Order: sequence, then C-alpha cells, then structure tokens
Amino acid sequence: MSARVLLPWPDIDVSEGFGAACYDGVEPPPADLGEVEFYVLPYDRGPEPPKLIGELPSLRVVQALSAGVETLVPLLPDGVRLANGRGLHDLSVAEHTLALIHAAQRDLPRWFAQQTRGEWTREHTRSLADSRVLLVGYGSIGRAVERQLVAAEAVVTRVASRPRPDEDVHGVAELPALLPKADIVVLVLPDTPATRGLIGSDELAALPDDALVINVGRGTAIDTEALLAETRTGRLRAGLDVVDPEPLPAGHPLWTVPGVVITPHIAGGSASFYPRAKKLVAEQLRRYAKGEELLNLVER
Amino acid sequence: MSARVLLPWPDIDVSEGFGAACYDGVEPPPADLGEVEFYVLPYDRGPEPPKLIGELPSLRVVQALSAGVETLVPLLPDGVRLANGRGLHDLSVAEHTLALIHAAQRDLPRWFAQQTRGEWTREHTRSLADSRVLLVGYGSIGRAVERQLVAAEAVVTRVASRPRPDEDVHGVAELPALLPKADIVVLVLPDTPATRGLIGSDELAALPDDALVINVGRGTAIDTEALLAETRTGRLRAGLDVVDPEPLPAGHPLWTVPGVVITPHIAGGSASFYPRAKKLVAEQLRRYAKGEELLNLVER
Repeated sequence: MSARVLLPWPDIDVSEGFGAACYDGVEPPPADLGEVEFYVLPYDRGPEPPKLIGELPSLRVVQALSAGVETLVPLLPDGVRLANGRGLHDLSVAEHTLALIHAAQRDLPRWFAQQTRGEWTREHTRSLADSRVLLVGYGSIGRAVERQLVAAEAVVTRVASRPRPDEDVHGVAELPALLPKADIVVLVLPDTPATRGLIGSDELAALPDDALVINVGRGTAIDTEALLAETRTGRLRAGLDVVDPEPLPAGHPLWTVPGVVITPHIAGGSASFYPRAKKLVAEQLRRYAKGEELLNLVER
Repeated sequence: MSARVLLPWPDIDVSEGFGAACYDGVEPPPADLGEVEFYVLPYDRGPEPPKLIGELPSLRVVQALSAGVETLVPLLPDGVRLANGRGLHDLSVAEHTLALIHAAQRDLPRWFAQQTRGEWTREHTRSLADSRVLLVGYGSIGRAVERQLVAAEAVVTRVASRPRPDEDVHGVAELPALLPKADIVVLVLPDTPATRGLIGSDELAALPDDALVINVGRGTAIDTEALLAETRTGRLRAGLDVVDPEPLPAGHPLWTVPGVVITPHIAGGSASFYPRAKKLVAEQLRRYAKGEELLNLVER
C-alpha cells in the first residue's frame, strides 16, 4: 500500500491502515507520493519542503510545525486545509527570551570574552529583578515569557494589538505613554502589516537611557536603521534573535555594535519542541483517521 | 557630634541623634571613628573593610551585606554582635543561575563568537524546559532558583544537607541514587566542612552523559580536578560562577574547556541587591535606635 501520510520523523504512531513515509527535508523525498493525503512539513528546513505541497495530487491536509504560516498560504491548492504549530515553540521561544535578557543584563558576552583570555576581572552588573518590562505581544508565547519574568521578580506590563482591559492588557496605541517607563521592551509579534516598523525612531526615542530592546518575534517589527542609530551611541541596548534583513549579512553594522547581542533566529528550535511536535502530530493523525475536527486549523 | 554609625552609602535614613559617616571600602575611612557603634561593612570590597572591625573601640554591631560571614566571625571583639546579609542576594544569585543554565543550554558562547565574526549559522539547541534539575541547597536562594526553573517548566528535585520529607526535600546522602536521573545539577551551597568536595569523581561519574553542572555557591563544593577530567572529554558540561581556586589563575586548564562557561563570582552583585541592602540597613538602624532585636543575627 502506498503512503497516505508523509512525516518528518519515523517515530510517530500512525493509525492502522495509514501507510506512512518519511521526508525529513534534508534527504530527497520518497518517490511514490501519489496517495499522500496528510503532509507534515519538516520544521525549519528551508524552501524545499513547502514546494512539495504542489506536487501531491491526493493532498487534503498540510500540518506545519511553525506558528507563522504566512508563506505557506499562497502555496495551498483549493480544498487543502492547513494547520499550524501554534504552541509547540512557546516554551522554547520563552526561555530564549530570558536567555537574551540575562545575557544583556548580566554582561555574559563580556565574561565569555574574558574566559577566552583566562581573565578574572569582576564588576557588578545590571539585574532582571525589579526591572520594568513592557511585554509587547500577549499570545501564548507572551504568557510563557511573562511567567518566567514574574518568577524572576520583574514587573511586567502587557501590551497587545488591541487593549483587553479584563486581562489588564494595553493596546499598542498606548505605547507612546508606556515606553518611557520601560527598562526592557520585549517584542513577541508576528509579521503583519500592523506590526511592520511598529518600533521606529520615535518609539526608540521614547525609551529611557540604557533601556534594553529584545526581539524574538519577527525582525520587521523594528526599524533596523533607527535601532542602529540608538544603539551605536550607547543610549540603548538590544538582544535580537530576529533581525531585518534576515539572515543578517556579513559586514552589516549591527553585528558589531557594543551592547547588542544577536542570535541567529534559533529561539523556537530547541529540544523541548520535538516531543511537543510529535504529540501534536500523533493527535492530528488520530483525529484525521476518525474524521474528527483537526486542531490549529488556519482560516484562509 | 561624632559618628555613631558607619555606612557604605550616604543615602540611608539614619535616626535623629545618630551621626553617620560614610566608608565605601574604596576611599580611606574617615578619621574620627572612636564613637562608631554600628558598622555596615562595604559589600564585596576585598580585605580592607573587615580589618576596620578591630579598630573601632565603641563598636557594638557589625552588619555584613553578604550571606556568608565565616571569615568575619574570628575578627569580632567580645560583645560585638554580627548580622549577615541573608536574603539580599537571593534574586541576584537566582537569576544568574538561570543565566548560566540558559547560556549552556542555548549555546550562547557559540552565538556570541559567531557575532564577532558576522556569521549567521543556525543550529537547534538543547532546552531548559523538560530538563530534570537536581537542586542541591534548598535555602532561600534555592527556593528563588526553583521558582524560576518551574516557570521555565523544568522538573525540579530538591536536595539539602538533611532530608525534610514534609517539604519533599531529599538529603545529600541520597545523591548517589538521584544523580543518574539529572540532566542539570545546580549547587547552591555554603562553604562548610560538610560541603567541601561534595561533588567528586564518583558523583560526577554518576551523572548521565551530557549533563550540566552549575555552581553558584562556593567553589569548594566541587573537586576541580575531577570536573576537569569529566568536562575535557566532553562527557559533562559546566556553568561556574565560583571555582576552586578562586580567583581562577590565568592559564588554569579549566578556562579553555569547551562546554564550560565561567563567570568571575558575580552572581550576587547585581543591581537588585542595592535597594534590598539599603532597606535592610535602614530597618536595622531603626531597630538599633529603639533597642529592638536586630534581624539576621549570627550565632557565635
């Protein structure tokens, strides 16, 4: 029997009667995919896996493992449903957010540079505790970030695209009033027309001296030139897992600004993602086999 | 009137009638200290401030701002009481513990090295979420560490010198059974005869491959040679804010072991310490002026 399910990993339970084939996004896909109805896209494997969507004549469902699926939607044939990986990366992104904050507040790049020289020179650092954190983006990742910030005794103010007074969430329209009172701004935003360039020169100018700008959502939320201008003078600091443009080209001036730490868009891809992804896929296949409603379906 | 209180910072409320002088541990102390009864030791300023203890003829109270005061006790004249800085550093040490864990799990030294080269190369990393953490030392710092670990969805097992079954705390005697099930061991221990060398070659050998050893208490808790042996082969990893010997001399082999991150004993000295220390000192002076029992008194 030909495969009706195409999976990135072999160790996932597939219902009886569903043949499964494996495509990890690195090795070429198997040859006979004419009966594949359910395609679980390999995660974070570049442009090849999405191209396969148009080459599966029996396709019914695409299961993405990323939360953002904006680049997949235009590739979907009529009648093919799309489910996203919402939630799978929350903890991974949240802990990397904390990693970037700690790196900046506790001067980790300095100590690691000293370590390479075998140098024991001490100095007191900034702290996360007591810091006033403006958390911009209050979905499931934002909530996970908040729990870790609160445990570290930071003081969190919540911001989302629209205000939700019942949850004590401010709207982005209030940013001009909120930014001057933030020691740390954390951006956990998707790439949408509303978020592009949300943090430009006016918003950065509104931050107090020495404030830290963290971005773990999409690089387009920040005007890179404006951030460069404010960090080069040493007035602001930044911790960035996402940038614009991405990948950041060799020789880009942002690489070498003191007070800016950069990781190469790796917040979502840590070990805790895999068991969560496999559990979701197994559940989706169970639902598909029984004709039940799938989780995480994306409206088109 | 001469000073009856000697303080490291000028911005502390002192009760009426108490003259205050300032000694920050860097500039020489003021000349006339004959009436000083209450000496608040400058924090983390080397060997000079403690020497002053023996030169204050009216001294009644020494307020230290560190949690560990083992080196001060022998310096106290008869009848002089000692209070420590228990609690002031809890959050600072706890967040630095998380910083070291994140640095190791999320490969921060690698990304910062790439940044200096302007290199955007990506790879998935380990995670803190889901990790099994053995937390050895369950006082106030240990509890603060635990809250942050739990918020990151790590799975914490508590260990202290003696078991406390009502708090689900294991005793160190159970380490041989607990170490094989730990992905991360966090040591938050004072330097005592019981803790010296607690983690030697047998204990390290009991850890699973790729386990991470974090030390933010005192360097003497780990046998440095044994740790070197297990990290040099790449079998174990480490994140160390304290080491033995300390300071770690230039050229010491521990500096350059891949998978070992070192910070120079700075966990306790971050910004969140200062407001807490000033609040404690103000409260102690209030109590002293009214003849009330002081906080944090150390038994001698």
